[in-house]
Amino acid sequence: MLESIKVIGFDADDTLWVNEPYFKELEEEFCQLLEEYLPDREVSEILFQTEVNNIEIYGYGVKAFMLSLIESSIKISNHKVSTHVIKKIIELGKQQLQKPVILLDGVQEVLDYLSAKNYKLIVATKGDLLDQERILQKAGIEKYFHHIEIMSNKNPSDYRKLLNHLEIKPEEFAMIGNSLKSDIVPVADIGGKAIYIPFHTVWQHEALTLDEFKEDSYLEIESISEINKLF
Amino acid sequence: MLESIKVIGFDADDTLWVNEPYFKELEEEFCQLLEEYLPDREVSEILFQTEVNNIEIYGYGVKAFMLSLIESSIKISNHKVSTHVIKKIIELGKQQLQKPVILLDGVQEVLDYLSAKNYKLIVATKGDLLDQERILQKAGIEKYFHHIEIMSNKNPSDYRKLLNHLEIKPEEFAMIGNSLKSDIVPVADIGGKAIYIPFHTVWQHEALTLDEFKEDSYLEIESISEINKLF
Repeated sequence: MLESIKVIGFDADDTLWVNEPYFKELEEEFCQLLEEYLPDREVSEILFQTEVNNIEIYGYGVKAFMLSLIESSIKISNHKVSTHVIKKIIELGKQQLQKPVILLDGVQEVLDYLSAKNYKLIVATKGDLLDQERILQKAGIEKYFHHIEIMSNKNPSDYRKLLNHLEIKPEEFAMIGNSLKSDIVPVADIGGKAIYIPFHTVWQHEALTLDEFKEDSYLEIESISEINKLF
Repeated sequence: MLESIKVIGFDADDTLWVNEPYFKELEEEFCQLLEEYLPDREVSEILFQTEVNNIEIYGYGVKAFMLSLIESSIKISNHKVSTHVIKKIIELGKQQLQKPVILLDGVQEVLDYLSAKNYKLIVATKGDLLDQERILQKAGIEKYFHHIEIMSNKNPSDYRKLLNHLEIKPEEFAMIGNSLKSDIVPVADIGGKAIYIPFHTVWQHEALTLDEFKEDSYLEIESISEINKLF
């Protein structure tokens, strides 16, 4: 199935390294900062709605999250939140941008193996370029990648643009990721190969139930270490 | 001088469309919002310092600017700024992200001309991908570009990475832009061709005086319309 592959795209967050748990942690701290106004569940619900409303304007990443946290804090407190809390949100966001990188188990070995086999490897991510480059450098895995492709969205048309840019056919492209919605379904849709590696935490907005999609159109593995058996 | 060129890179903000004046406008509104605390000049100075301190963490673009505005408002007011003002800053930032696009005179004609001559055109920008894609689409000039290259920085090493990614030699690359520091000097440094089109407003942080650089290592034109005579 995978003989024709020339380029392998890796999603970044929660495929190569730990990401979503950092957002969850920051959300928990945010709930604590606002506990005098509303219970955690309602704080999280308003935050989620704010984030979703802002995606089209802000896109993804930590800066977008910080702006949604600040906006939500004003909404949740009915304008009563103190500027000390807002400053704390900014500090927590900056800390998140500078957190140590935790590569997922097996990533280094898989990148070594695929590079040695002369596949062209790219990172294909909706994240912020500066964030993602910083992480690749910190983790020392920048050298494995031909380039980082920042995608404003991961719809089939966005993947078609990517293939056009790479000057390859769909059957020459494999995508590896943890989001059915963003990494798997659209790539299978345009005739590429998609390899799904579930991660324990998925952001609500990325969630997709399996019955929305034919299960035989992609491969599912448990850990990135299993990649070496496929290529 | 330009016979060997295969790929032409365009800076985006203030080379293809109006950008910096929108930041200046927002900064003026910000000064008004905080006039009870400090005079405009001091507000602008604290804002600039905050932006520069945050560049390494946030990078460029409107979201980074919004976060620096909020942080500065707290600093300038010694925590007294009202959450209504902070909400207003968020609203103004969102409006800026959705402002109409004003292409600079001659851009459309130049892109038509260079496309017809089969140059590969790219956008090479430090801006935020989502912002830049939205602008290209709004302006209807997306079709001219092979892709948008988002650069976290525009140092010589970043341009070397870009050429590597494009799989071309330095002498096959021309860069067109309004920032000596970001578009001209680093490209000339690595042996590419650089074409400088000054814009009336340059952000302080991008400013560079000419005597820091040999003037004969790049071309300077007054308007993008003159490009057609060069290629």
